[in-house]
Amino acid sequence: MNDLFELVELADKKLLENEKVDASLISGLKTIVSSGGYIGMAQINPTAGNIEYNAKKIAKYIKFSEQIGLDAVVFPELALMGYPIEDTIDRHPIIVEENIKWLKGLADITGNTTAIVGFVEFNKNSKGKKYYNSVAVLKNGAIQGIIRKSLLPAYSEFNDYRYMEPSSVSGVQPAETLGGINFTDCSKLYDGYGISVCEDCWNDGQFFQRTLYNTNPIEELVKEKPKLLINCSASPTRAKKEQLKHNMLKFISSKYKIPFLYVNQTGATDNVSFDGTSRVYDSDGNLIARAKSFEEQFMIVNPYKKTGKIYPLTKGLEKSLTEQKVFTLEYESDLERTYKTIIQGIRDYFAKCGLKRAVLGLSGGLDSTVCAVLMADALGCENVFGVSMPSHITSNESRSDAEELANNLGINFTEAPIRSMIDTTTECLNNLFGKVEEKWGKYYDSSTGAFTNKPNNIYPSFTPDNIQARSRAMFLWGISNEFASCIPIATSDKSELYMGYATINGDMSGGFAPIADVPKTKLFAFARWLNKNREVKNAIPEAIILKKPGAELAINPKTGKPLIAEDALMPYEFLDEIIWRIENKNESYNELLKTEFVYEKHNKISREQKTEWLDKFYRRMSTALYKWSIMPPSVIVEARSINKCDYRQPIISSKINYKGVNEKYINESLGSNSNA
Amino acid sequence: MNDLFELVELADKKLLENEKVDASLISGLKTIVSSGGYIGMAQINPTAGNIEYNAKKIAKYIKFSEQIGLDAVVFPELALMGYPIEDTIDRHPIIVEENIKWLKGLADITGNTTAIVGFVEFNKNSKGKKYYNSVAVLKNGAIQGIIRKSLLPAYSEFNDYRYMEPSSVSGVQPAETLGGINFTDCSKLYDGYGISVCEDCWNDGQFFQRTLYNTNPIEELVKEKPKLLINCSASPTRAKKEQLKHNMLKFISSKYKIPFLYVNQTGATDNVSFDGTSRVYDSDGNLIARAKSFEEQFMIVNPYKKTGKIYPLTKGLEKSLTEQKVFTLEYESDLERTYKTIIQGIRDYFAKCGLKRAVLGLSGGLDSTVCAVLMADALGCENVFGVSMPSHITSNESRSDAEELANNLGINFTEAPIRSMIDTTTECLNNLFGKVEEKWGKYYDSSTGAFTNKPNNIYPSFTPDNIQARSRAMFLWGISNEFASCIPIATSDKSELYMGYATINGDMSGGFAPIADVPKTKLFAFARWLNKNREVKNAIPEAIILKKPGAELAINPKTGKPLIAEDALMPYEFLDEIIWRIENKNESYNELLKTEFVYEKHNKISREQKTEWLDKFYRRMSTALYKWSIMPPSVIVEARSINKCDYRQPIISSKINYKGVNEKYINESLGSNSNA
Repeated sequence: MNDLFELVELADKKLLENEKVDASLISGLKTIVSSGGYIGMAQINPTAGNIEYNAKKIAKYIKFSEQIGLDAVVFPELALMGYPIEDTIDRHPIIVEENIKWLKGLADITGNTTAIVGFVEFNKNSKGKKYYNSVAVLKNGAIQGIIRKSLLPAYSEFNDYRYMEPSSVSGVQPAETLGGINFTDCSKLYDGYGISVCEDCWNDGQFFQRTLYNTNPIEELVKEKPKLLINCSASPTRAKKEQLKHNMLKFISSKYKIPFLYVNQTGATDNVSFDGTSRVYDSDGNLIARAKSFEEQFMIVNPYKKTGKIYPLTKGLEKSLTEQKVFTLEYESDLERTYKTIIQGIRDYFAKCGLKRAVLGLSGGLDSTVCAVLMADALGCENVFGVSMPSHITSNESRSDAEELANNLGINFTEAPIRSMIDTTTECLNNLFGKVEEKWGKYYDSSTGAFTNKPNNIYPSFTPDNIQARSRAMFLWGISNEFASCIPIATSDKSELYMGYATINGDMSGGFAPIADVPKTKLFAFARWLNKNREVKNAIPEAIILKKPGAELAINPKTGKPLIAEDALMPYEFLDEIIWRIENKNESYNELLKTEFVYEKHNKISREQKTEWLDKFYRRMSTALYKWSIMPPSVIVEARSINKCDYRQPIISSKINYKGVNEKYINESLGSNSNA
Repeated sequence: MNDLFELVELADKKLLENEKVDASLISGLKTIVSSGGYIGMAQINPTAGNIEYNAKKIAKYIKFSEQIGLDAVVFPELALMGYPIEDTIDRHPIIVEENIKWLKGLADITGNTTAIVGFVEFNKNSKGKKYYNSVAVLKNGAIQGIIRKSLLPAYSEFNDYRYMEPSSVSGVQPAETLGGINFTDCSKLYDGYGISVCEDCWNDGQFFQRTLYNTNPIEELVKEKPKLLINCSASPTRAKKEQLKHNMLKFISSKYKIPFLYVNQTGATDNVSFDGTSRVYDSDGNLIARAKSFEEQFMIVNPYKKTGKIYPLTKGLEKSLTEQKVFTLEYESDLERTYKTIIQGIRDYFAKCGLKRAVLGLSGGLDSTVCAVLMADALGCENVFGVSMPSHITSNESRSDAEELANNLGINFTEAPIRSMIDTTTECLNNLFGKVEEKWGKYYDSSTGAFTNKPNNIYPSFTPDNIQARSRAMFLWGISNEFASCIPIATSDKSELYMGYATINGDMSGGFAPIADVPKTKLFAFARWLNKNREVKNAIPEAIILKKPGAELAINPKTGKPLIAEDALMPYEFLDEIIWRIENKNESYNELLKTEFVYEKHNKISREQKTEWLDKFYRRMSTALYKWSIMPPSVIVEARSINKCDYRQPIISSKINYKGVNEKYINESLGSNSNA
């Protein structure tokens, strides 16, 4: 059957380029698939809300599938609208009307091939939310049936339940139900297909220790003995998620002895990057087909004959399928996925927003360096401008490292000293501070509850540091103003954002933040990986990787050298393990105190030291909540994040006592009932 | 019965100040309530996540209620945890464990008075989300029963469904079910009380044209003939919401002939301001008690004897109860509510974050003026610093208006010219632009797809404007860095944010944005209202209100005077009606084109002019989505908003076609099926 896949690859290439597929290719494919049972999987990258664009893309694959005579062609969840569309459908119902019109247009072009297309449906019942997350079965010029999503996720980046009504029935409803009246006495299958939408297949009570919902739509479908289970998905990539998804789909298909065909969206919507990697399991739970990750692809499979091609996962991921969910500094198996997740995130954000170019400050440090590499790879080196903006604290090494990096990458580069801006700003600010000091004390004295100008050594002034960071941002936003289709890049990393170690209107400001969900220890591994795996090897100067991270904004009075970040914070290895344990294991302060950290295995630290670092962590995290709330869009990479589309915590909850108290304390605090 | 309310007011005052209530007061109240049927309503302002603080507050009212011998004391939804706690409970389950420990502590101090206290409960079943939004019935030193919220809102600012499990049963479950096993064969009432949580009472199919959920918990409770319906709420204020709430609760109590007692949270959590205004309706649907709005208050009522006191709504709101939901420039009836909503929002954000002071730029324009008044009223004039930062474009009038305003308000004031910063920055940027121009064209030529340096008159450069706005923000953030417990204020208003008419890292940057949900036409009315209704009359110079808004960042080449915002945008009256219609009526482009605007009633405009403004609106709104995503916390005021906690639209959805297309266009675009 090699022929089939070679022919499909050739056709896919033409389809992607919107070129005509050669007649010989078509007739070759026609001959192969004429024996029946062949299904097209259209792993597409729609743009949320751009219905015309999405419809034309869908039409292309429907027409091609018709031409070669496939049984069916399957598209991802909400393919016509693009996922996620969020609250837009509530405020602007016109776009839902439009997607219905285009859906009917798509139905018009169908013939003998069944097209399975995700769209937003109005719920015309007087009860429930206004919309359904639906899939339409199109054939012979008409809508043949509707499948409505039953299980609506509302966690992490998912918000389906906000304006969508969960369907009380599983499987196919008659076409005349468009608008939402459910029939309960009809077959749940269409032509033997048991069709479900994304989350509907994520609730198997035997597979999951804990299920989120009370029904299992797959079980409902299976009762009618489908020949094939089909799931239309929009499932984002996350660390360790491939492992879970593979095991679950394998489990379901082998449990029911029914082949399972899963079509996932690819592309990114703001912060969320979808990995595609559509796949088919046979009725024994064996993987028989798998599409590429982070790319549009059209595949043909025959689930009954076990015909399919397995494209590799991103490198290293196969290995990690057996890894335990434990904290480790061995990031290797996740780095290609990390790279492709971010590259797709950048590329789609720029393309879908109509942006073409990026400018970023190059400090010679790790964060801006990795950002520069990613931007160059995502947008093309000619579309990236790196600006070195040295201050009086910037070392000559940092300046030359930045320039060397730019040369290695082939991006545009210039140097723009910020000395005169710092001097002018400092002078202006000092004048201003003098006037403010006449009315206001600088420091808060908690013992008197008053403000005083008596110097206070507890809180050093960050003003000089911030002037530097903000002057740089002023330069970058200036370029963005003056040069069309260009935005500045925010270079903050996850570890430092957790600690609020980023300047408002400074380095954390930008139009996009590529590495905001990558912890620092992973960034080091990532830099080495980039040096080894990019076409141009070792673009990142070794000196940048070896250097201890530090913002070069202030001098450490103890050493006379620029302050190192780990001095201000704590060792990154330790910090990143706290973050990982909180996000992945939901550990508390006291649990963290008891756990032996990887860092502790090779560094003896006292309990006092550990307590100090943990206290600092919680204190800094609590006051970083505001900064998280104003972060520019970024790409979610890890299993959990602080991205505001993924995690929401009230800013005013900064007084949470993460350590907890004991019962004695509670009883003493509340006193007793004077009547009792 | 006047005695009762006078005594309660005196006691309430002491309780608010955490002072001992006089024995004579207690014995007076004891005598009155000894006849039975008296219930305490504790309208408190908890802090999300600060469980110890909340528990102590709750304990205070429980003890007092016990002392005077009330039948029961009722607290708002999630009183112990604070609402909304959002995703925090998922990432940090420790705080849920803590709230259970404190709940048991509260149970310990109860005697004969039933305390009804909202808290977060673990769901220990293997199915469903991890938590319940619950209320505990505490009495005689123990938890007597649990009520779990059934209807979990997931729209606008509500996200209950993210990590909470909807309860499948209504009413009281036995105490031994703590953790979540539901009994179905027990009484739903506790001591004759039918208790529900917030949204549970918002789904009456006879009252609402459309109900969001399939069950009505109130109807379930009513089946068991409760003597009193009790609802524990955390319901935020919104324009026109009081009208809806009043009509609905009146409808329910008269429909079932059962009195209804409703206790609402007050205070603010980040962007969301809760109005309190707890109330009781008798069994005929008559309002018999209503607490103050936007204040903590302890009330005593007797729903059976129709004993209660009705405190006034915010001024004007009674009038608006009969108003239709139509767009109007008559804002009068909503201005006191607007004022109190924002003042509470500012005050609680500052207090709960441990902030005390604010600094803002005073331009002599309307936005910064209204912000200054609000900040002075919320924080005290001594805690506000106004800085006039004139540039070469700033008129003398603007400077003197700003100073006059500051004097009238009694806030601190200074002038800090930004000329030297602008000059230095401009010089530095021009140098930099020269270097960038060597590699990059400034303008995008869509015909060639290339960038060119051939001047392009379509897009004027905003660089000089933005340098001014950003220099000012640099000054304000500098003060925030240097002076403890102080943040800068972002002065953007709703109309201008809709149009993206705000500078990133400039006027839209700050620690808090007081008027981000107030449209410009309302701000004019608000300014006049402030002048009339504040203790110090006419603090806002008339010249500021009469002036046409404009950022004074650029000169209009046609007039030689500073550019006026309405020239760059469109008349504010017209703009604000578009916004209102989109948010409140979900009207589409074509519907807006057909509607006769209030503006059109007294200004003749051509269809071309209207089309031009509508086109500009949708174009600017589409590219403002990024700015909405990085806005600082603000206060939601209107019925709908663009606050990111309330409305989410993907930034990459900027290509939405809001006009729609016709079927002919669709058929031509998709072509026909070549096989058909």
